[in-house]
Amino acid sequence: MSEPILTAWLNGQFMPLEGAVVHIEDRGFQFADGVYEVVACVDGRFLDLDAHLARLERSCAAIRIELPLSRDALAALVRQIYERNPFSRAMIYIQITRGAGPRSHYPATSLSPTMVMTSRALPQPTSERVAQGYRAITRPDIRWKHCEIKSIALLASIMGKQEAHDAEVDETFWLDECGHVLEGCSTNTFAVIDGTLVTHPLDHQVLGGITRDLVLRLAGQHGLTVVERPWSLSEGVSECMLSSTTNAVMPVCYIDGQAIADGKPGSTTLQLRQWLIAAMESPET
Amino acid sequence: MSEPILTAWLNGQFMPLEGAVVHIEDRGFQFADGVYEVVACVDGRFLDLDAHLARLERSCAAIRIELPLSRDALAALVRQIYERNPFSRAMIYIQITRGAGPRSHYPATSLSPTMVMTSRALPQPTSERVAQGYRAITRPDIRWKHCEIKSIALLASIMGKQEAHDAEVDETFWLDECGHVLEGCSTNTFAVIDGTLVTHPLDHQVLGGITRDLVLRLAGQHGLTVVERPWSLSEGVSECMLSSTTNAVMPVCYIDGQAIADGKPGSTTLQLRQWLIAAMESPET
Repeated sequence: MSEPILTAWLNGQFMPLEGAVVHIEDRGFQFADGVYEVVACVDGRFLDLDAHLARLERSCAAIRIELPLSRDALAALVRQIYERNPFSRAMIYIQITRGAGPRSHYPATSLSPTMVMTSRALPQPTSERVAQGYRAITRPDIRWKHCEIKSIALLASIMGKQEAHDAEVDETFWLDECGHVLEGCSTNTFAVIDGTLVTHPLDHQVLGGITRDLVLRLAGQHGLTVVERPWSLSEGVSECMLSSTTNAVMPVCYIDGQAIADGKPGSTTLQLRQWLIAAMESPET
Repeated sequence: MSEPILTAWLNGQFMPLEGAVVHIEDRGFQFADGVYEVVACVDGRFLDLDAHLARLERSCAAIRIELPLSRDALAALVRQIYERNPFSRAMIYIQITRGAGPRSHYPATSLSPTMVMTSRALPQPTSERVAQGYRAITRPDIRWKHCEIKSIALLASIMGKQEAHDAEVDETFWLDECGHVLEGCSTNTFAVIDGTLVTHPLDHQVLGGITRDLVLRLAGQHGLTVVERPWSLSEGVSECMLSSTTNAVMPVCYIDGQAIADGKPGSTTLQLRQWLIAAMESPET
């Protein structure tokens, strides 16, 4: 079974993904000097596309890359890369780096940013997988102090995913020095504690997830009590869940080998997942 | 004046640097999932090549990349890339990434590492520049907790270099939470305090610089007292210097706008620079 031919967009041109290459002196390749986004699309409807592009602009500004395209132009390209690829449920990947030039930590001022877009199938867990829930481990946070920037300097997250894989679980949750759960390697994390939905507040230790925002918005709309505060696993957590563009909301039923409550997905988690999936499948709001 | 045509080595082949490209789904480009080395060569003599390659092996092991080539094979390639380029004083850049594959944080096990080598002219400061010395600023360390790994996840260092550039100085020194000077963005740092050469000990907060090692070795051989301990600028620093492959040893005469002693390079610093340059220009030891 051969893969379909996929189309990438690179620096102004659509081309077969296979042939989409960057120079070895691209600063994305040598210095992790870039940022990215992943946007979900279901049947042509993008989830919070404008919020993703707004965050991309903030990420670029934070590391001083001047985005060469307006938000509207980017949105049009995102729609085109979706249409040129064979996935009705897609994740659109967007990456911007500072560009290519002779290696030097301080960037030359004349560089032209490298811009990439691809489309791949959006993973979809089976209903059995949802019913079973994910498992996670916790580790002291080894990442840098600007996790609010969605940068491609992701090696710490890769190492976290390796540890999760070693432990035969799905995700590693990073803990701050007080043992608070910050977020996962590629996900935000939530708990239900005393009937309240709790998640770490936005600061330099967590990424302001677009799906995290949507979870909080949907929870509020449906009358759940929501508190953004540091939380730890010792607080009598009755449910745990994670969120991301590619996971929507997924229950986390075991952490460090210990069951959360009865080790089954909680009702609030499953309800949030339903609301989120409904939002993904409804017309853009 | 056109640049000479430079030669790169990429995944087993020598080729014009201009045409040396990697796929946009190379994990070095998307995840900073790789490591690197920079080796100096003067008139065909490499400075501590074996130590650089040993560190490359340690870096690969730390992030679980299996190096496909032996140290001898790598050393032979380093010599070839030097010979195929027009610089008698060269810095050889070596980069290894986990390879290319459909984007996923946890790497597929079947990936074949991407290997890159280039050669560029080794910068050489003028004697006026040495006499003037460098200037630096200090900033709280924003980097991750594995600075002992020479990874390409360098965005924090790039941001430090941007701040240095804003302040019209040469380097940013990272401070730990107690105000100890750890190292620079691309350099190790030393002070002379009460006649003793002091540098931060090796731990997860500093890279074990090959030039740092050589400085300590040369200092010891010449009877200087050397102590590896945390140090701060409030301790009565009489000299400050930095070291790296591309800088050898350079004096740092102003930090955060304040002169170190009389604002001129110290005698120990200049002596160490001389010894280091002599080591670079003598046959390999």
